[in-house]
Amino acid sequence: MDLLAETVAAIVAPDAQARTAAAERLDRMTKPRGSLGQVEDVAVTLSGIAGTCPPPIPEPAAVAVFAADHGVHAQGVSPWPQEVTAQMVGNFLAGGAVVNAFARRLGAEVCIVDVGVAGSIEGPGAAMGLLPRRIAPATADMTAGPALTRAQAQAAVEVGIETARDLVAAGNRCLVTGDMGIANTTAAAALICAFTGTTPAAATGRGTGIDDAMLAHKTAVVAAALERHEPDPRDPLGVLAAFGGLEHAALAGFVLGGAALRVPVLLDGVNAGAAALVAGAFTPTAVGYCVAGHRSAEPGHALALAHLGLEPLLDLGMRLGEGTGALLALPVLQAAVQALLDVATFDAAGVADKDETT
Amino acid sequence: MDLLAETVAAIVAPDAQARTAAAERLDRMTKPRGSLGQVEDVAVTLSGIAGTCPPPIPEPAAVAVFAADHGVHAQGVSPWPQEVTAQMVGNFLAGGAVVNAFARRLGAEVCIVDVGVAGSIEGPGAAMGLLPRRIAPATADMTAGPALTRAQAQAAVEVGIETARDLVAAGNRCLVTGDMGIANTTAAAALICAFTGTTPAAATGRGTGIDDAMLAHKTAVVAAALERHEPDPRDPLGVLAAFGGLEHAALAGFVLGGAALRVPVLLDGVNAGAAALVAGAFTPTAVGYCVAGHRSAEPGHALALAHLGLEPLLDLGMRLGEGTGALLALPVLQAAVQALLDVATFDAAGVADKDETT
Repeated sequence: MDLLAETVAAIVAPDAQARTAAAERLDRMTKPRGSLGQVEDVAVTLSGIAGTCPPPIPEPAAVAVFAADHGVHAQGVSPWPQEVTAQMVGNFLAGGAVVNAFARRLGAEVCIVDVGVAGSIEGPGAAMGLLPRRIAPATADMTAGPALTRAQAQAAVEVGIETARDLVAAGNRCLVTGDMGIANTTAAAALICAFTGTTPAAATGRGTGIDDAMLAHKTAVVAAALERHEPDPRDPLGVLAAFGGLEHAALAGFVLGGAALRVPVLLDGVNAGAAALVAGAFTPTAVGYCVAGHRSAEPGHALALAHLGLEPLLDLGMRLGEGTGALLALPVLQAAVQALLDVATFDAAGVADKDETT
Repeated sequence: MDLLAETVAAIVAPDAQARTAAAERLDRMTKPRGSLGQVEDVAVTLSGIAGTCPPPIPEPAAVAVFAADHGVHAQGVSPWPQEVTAQMVGNFLAGGAVVNAFARRLGAEVCIVDVGVAGSIEGPGAAMGLLPRRIAPATADMTAGPALTRAQAQAAVEVGIETARDLVAAGNRCLVTGDMGIANTTAAAALICAFTGTTPAAATGRGTGIDDAMLAHKTAVVAAALERHEPDPRDPLGVLAAFGGLEHAALAGFVLGGAALRVPVLLDGVNAGAAALVAGAFTPTAVGYCVAGHRSAEPGHALALAHLGLEPLLDLGMRLGEGTGALLALPVLQAAVQALLDVATFDAAGVADKDETT
């Protein structure tokens, strides 16, 4: 059995008993029942993932930023030159990007994985700190043919699985998704259409910021690619081969790897959402290990989250990627578990409980 | 000049130049313009508050939990016995409440201020750690007469100002609002009606969890109090005297105190929102020093925030109070400043900027 099949086979459903134990504990804690809203849902989810209540606090956390380029960039779907992917990888390695600042602040490790960047990566950090896992120098243009071979798609998924394994082996107890790739919201839109059945017009957005004309063109490009490939949502490797990107494939593997190891995967924006759809097509059980960190401003993201049945924690109008939105949600996960660990029950604290006394 | 007048007079508008400097810096940082959404707004706000860009990281932070009781509890507006206020203060002092767990997790100090709790506070922490600033043992019933005298209202406001001063003198660079008081959402609803002109039906909510019948009764109680007192929103002390509560008065002073010292005040839920309306009635300039941490599930809160022109950072369906919602937003403030401090500009990082190159 190959790594992908082995990983998928290893994923079991989150533990129902631990979820029930968390829900019951939350109801005995000195607060009105349900008064922590989604934070209570998170506490229940993390208990089920860990298989015990209270679960370990999800720290340390590591954000893996999978970087790759996209052949569809040639269709003029982004105002940014393709070189910006490599330049931003250099910036990550030098510690100068937003993901670095947020991770520094929140005590998370940043792991940069080159899974398919076009061109060379330069800068002070290029010799160290980068995981070189380049499957191809960018995908091929999805409008002209398949973006990847099936073998390339599987290899990229396995890069994600291995990254998850390595980060958990290093002691991390929360995996945060990050991504970098000029034009990757075009691939994300195609993936979201393929798995949810939504239209290109609904799933395609302005990415890092494009005008109306470019948005109309980008939407047409997504529509053309979907028509050309007629993707089968029951065949996730086939869908990945059709549209890419390499970072979406790796992110899907990252989700599968985390799920197999029963470690929560904190999802960032639209690219993570698209990758979670891929992971869910391999096995729906994997989605139970995901927590949606935030809702991106990209319209396809809300559609992906709705299809996945995930409620995002933050909604700050962010649309940067890199893992930045997910990182801001990390303290919510950690605080939810801290509450399960520390908060006194009504009985223990000698506080009257209206639901007992009335 | 008394402390209240002196504090109000000391409040100046946030610095426009520092705000502009922050906005310009955000536009040069290696990310698409505007791609951090509300996080960028926070960075601009904190720069204006501090009067410099980048501003200091808002840490350490202290949450002040102002606790008090309410005479209107006798009208049957809450299913919780009034003794729960004192019991929960004991729980805070013992470190067993949600605010303690969240503050521990997020590195914030918890300061408990008894500004008007009915009855004695017991438990292991009662002898130490509590700031005894009781102005009265609860307010009087607002439906039978004024909740407070004007002098009591002013004294409670000044407790809040002094608390803010003391916490800033101790080195804190972010003030977080917290509150505890059985029936205090009834007083908050009356305050919100008084200052925004909204109806009791729109502003009154289920608080810690009441059924339809009790909600209808609570709404009628708020309406009766408003009819009796005919509050003048230009007279904040008069409005406080009419409805209370002592914790709302103290929270309003806490906002004024933070604003006078140019320290950001991170607002929690509906009680903080009502108190910020009071502070804004003393001087609208004070509102510029507030950041809305979250939107509570209590309907009056959204009305208060809209009136104040504040956009909440989190919306997690929380309705606990104590400062818990605001605390979860604290990392967003800190990360926003960390980004201003650390993120490379396009020029410095050698990354192409589409807005320069196209």
